[in-house]
Amino acid sequence: MATPEPFDAVDVIRTKRDRGELSDGQIDWVVDAYTRGVVADEQMSALAMAILLNGMSRREIARWTDAMIRTGRRMDWSAVDRPTTDKHSTGGVGDKITLPLAPTVAACGAAVPQLSGRGLGHTGGTLDKLESIPGWRASLSADEMLGVLRDTGAVVCAAGDDLAPADKKLYALRDVTGTVEAIPLIASSIMSKKIAEGTGALVLDVKVGSGAFMKDAASARELAETMVALGTDAGVRTVALLTNMETPLGLTAGNALEVRESVEVLGGGGPDDVVELTVTLAREMLAAAGLDGGKDPADALKDGSAMDVWRRMIAAQGGDPSAALPRARETHTVLAPADGVLARLDAYQVGVAAWRLGAGRARKDEDVQAAAGVELHAKPGAVVRAGEPLLTLHTDEPARFDRALEALDGGYVIAPAGGRPDLPPLVIDRVG
Amino acid sequence: MATPEPFDAVDVIRTKRDRGELSDGQIDWVVDAYTRGVVADEQMSALAMAILLNGMSRREIARWTDAMIRTGRRMDWSAVDRPTTDKHSTGGVGDKITLPLAPTVAACGAAVPQLSGRGLGHTGGTLDKLESIPGWRASLSADEMLGVLRDTGAVVCAAGDDLAPADKKLYALRDVTGTVEAIPLIASSIMSKKIAEGTGALVLDVKVGSGAFMKDAASARELAETMVALGTDAGVRTVALLTNMETPLGLTAGNALEVRESVEVLGGGGPDDVVELTVTLAREMLAAAGLDGGKDPADALKDGSAMDVWRRMIAAQGGDPSAALPRARETHTVLAPADGVLARLDAYQVGVAAWRLGAGRARKDEDVQAAAGVELHAKPGAVVRAGEPLLTLHTDEPARFDRALEALDGGYVIAPAGGRPDLPPLVIDRVG
Repeated sequence: MATPEPFDAVDVIRTKRDRGELSDGQIDWVVDAYTRGVVADEQMSALAMAILLNGMSRREIARWTDAMIRTGRRMDWSAVDRPTTDKHSTGGVGDKITLPLAPTVAACGAAVPQLSGRGLGHTGGTLDKLESIPGWRASLSADEMLGVLRDTGAVVCAAGDDLAPADKKLYALRDVTGTVEAIPLIASSIMSKKIAEGTGALVLDVKVGSGAFMKDAASARELAETMVALGTDAGVRTVALLTNMETPLGLTAGNALEVRESVEVLGGGGPDDVVELTVTLAREMLAAAGLDGGKDPADALKDGSAMDVWRRMIAAQGGDPSAALPRARETHTVLAPADGVLARLDAYQVGVAAWRLGAGRARKDEDVQAAAGVELHAKPGAVVRAGEPLLTLHTDEPARFDRALEALDGGYVIAPAGGRPDLPPLVIDRVG
Repeated sequence: MATPEPFDAVDVIRTKRDRGELSDGQIDWVVDAYTRGVVADEQMSALAMAILLNGMSRREIARWTDAMIRTGRRMDWSAVDRPTTDKHSTGGVGDKITLPLAPTVAACGAAVPQLSGRGLGHTGGTLDKLESIPGWRASLSADEMLGVLRDTGAVVCAAGDDLAPADKKLYALRDVTGTVEAIPLIASSIMSKKIAEGTGALVLDVKVGSGAFMKDAASARELAETMVALGTDAGVRTVALLTNMETPLGLTAGNALEVRESVEVLGGGGPDDVVELTVTLAREMLAAAGLDGGKDPADALKDGSAMDVWRRMIAAQGGDPSAALPRARETHTVLAPADGVLARLDAYQVGVAAWRLGAGRARKDEDVQAAAGVELHAKPGAVVRAGEPLLTLHTDEPARFDRALEALDGGYVIAPAGGRPDLPPLVIDRVG
């Protein structure tokens, strides 16, 4: 006969529904029992909605995170002779920063063991981007991951099924039950994976603005503070930056398009904002790993050492860093309708357009187009002239242009020349 | 190819989660799509939790109720030549009132088409009680139901699967997801079945107190007002009484025990409170059906006409009204520990004791014992003497006594004689 369960799912749900605090025992049990299938999806979704509406204390969030970690294994990099450090972004449009960042930090002496994800909805995923490089593969065994990390100083790959499996199951459930937007659940989801990943230091890039999950600075700050506390309590040196996501990062949103831009940055060029954020985050990652005062990331981009790590890192996962990247079969260019200054270019609308062009997926099991996406010819603040290219849409299926153009409707504003748009700084705040 | 769905479950959930009002179209779709299995259990439970925590407007509750009715069929009693009237109780301990009430109202000239339910947890179910009568069966076809109603004036039977099937599915879901206690969902669940049942008039007996679903008068009144509005809007003449459920109704809680007591009432005897509530509710039912001024229910209990309907009604569903009722193989009597006045006898604790003795079920598919239950020898306000019987427990399985006695622990209070307990009235208020 099965061991009787020590708690009852309905009691746990009622506790949170009635604004009570869940005990450590209740949290440990409900997370584990959900993973085992003893607590049903319909019970966990009711609990998730109660958590979303009634909140959780710091203690509850920390315990929930720890309970999710304990449903799987925790990785160990003690065999690596450099300090480990990682970055996590809450997701934005054109956010290819991991691609230049990981090799840059490795070139400065740290090891970057990054378990990354795929895109869903209007935000892209790092693995989707890297998979546009011919031959590159996202899945590595733990031994392969350790080998790449030791050999090159950086590894970006998919998380195995044994890393916080509770989070995997819960995330899929939240996605279909309107319970994604709960700060305790977002924070514990991100941090359970990052803590289980075994990094010694962590920099969180919490995006704020139309293209981000958090639309306002107050909720972004709450999420950042929650995650920094979770990381710190778990022995991971954690800091967070709040960064602007009102407009896309760089000049591209789409998989191969973003790889191309990342390679430009690694070659010492590329758009200013991508370079600035890469260098800022790299310095934070190195400082958190106790490596400040060594080689500066800006130098690693200039002297070719970051590019060198990139090429070895891509090759180590089967990719050909010299191969031509896929190009879309069809392009459509949007021209500036008037002379003036580009006052606004909405990140969310560009993200949705890229998604509709084929760069993203609506459901987890969909494929993405490697070459689809949006290329920007101007960023907010730039002077534009009527009839000059503003954006170019890329896709393999021209039938997709109409709905992508619809998504962009009203997404850019050209103000009379001479006016100066009030642009927010790229890095809004620092927590931790 | 399937017709695309006009709404998205996550959008509907988010609307209510963010304190918005659901549109008529959203409500119609989500109730129907849930019944069809297009909206998943985990989506409906998240929505139910959002409804529980954020509430619903009167318009939303009315539309939700109507949408549930439209998932099934609506019954029609136009072939019956008397006005139809029914009663619904929100459930209590010892609440056998339907048994004397339906034949009494029929004896006074109305027709009572009652679709009834089974017990779950500490409250009993009318069908479970009637099934303790040898031969009686709860399931009737619509034609059989019409036949019994025309022949005897009253029929009490199980609802068919085609009566508000959305409610059946949703109720089972709420039961396991901590979302039972939402007034909009309780009201729409009850009223969808009663409106679909096709009764022309309806009296609601909303119980208040420890043995009831609603523990305080304020929430009971809110539920009563919500249901009266729903019934009235649907063209059913509806009134509600708030009645006391701090202590059990009558002197018995248990299936055959309550049938025996009901037959005493039909024979002109029985406990005062059961007689009072039967007569009060019968007068309300007759008035709502436009039959006030005719025969008085108190007379129908005295002159044998109610008993006559009872016997014909039981016989029409295969029961033998003269057969001996089952008796428990084991009894255990609790003696009064002191001289004094019985100041309190807790309905909930007596209900749980009866349940643990075998009279109730913890899960829908469990059987109940016909003869199990609790018999009271005194009611609050009565003078008791040390060593005299206070309660007798009945069961077929003596191993059940211990946990039943545990449930009763602290459930009765004997105050010094001369003190007069402050007992609430049986009928607390009237709505409608």
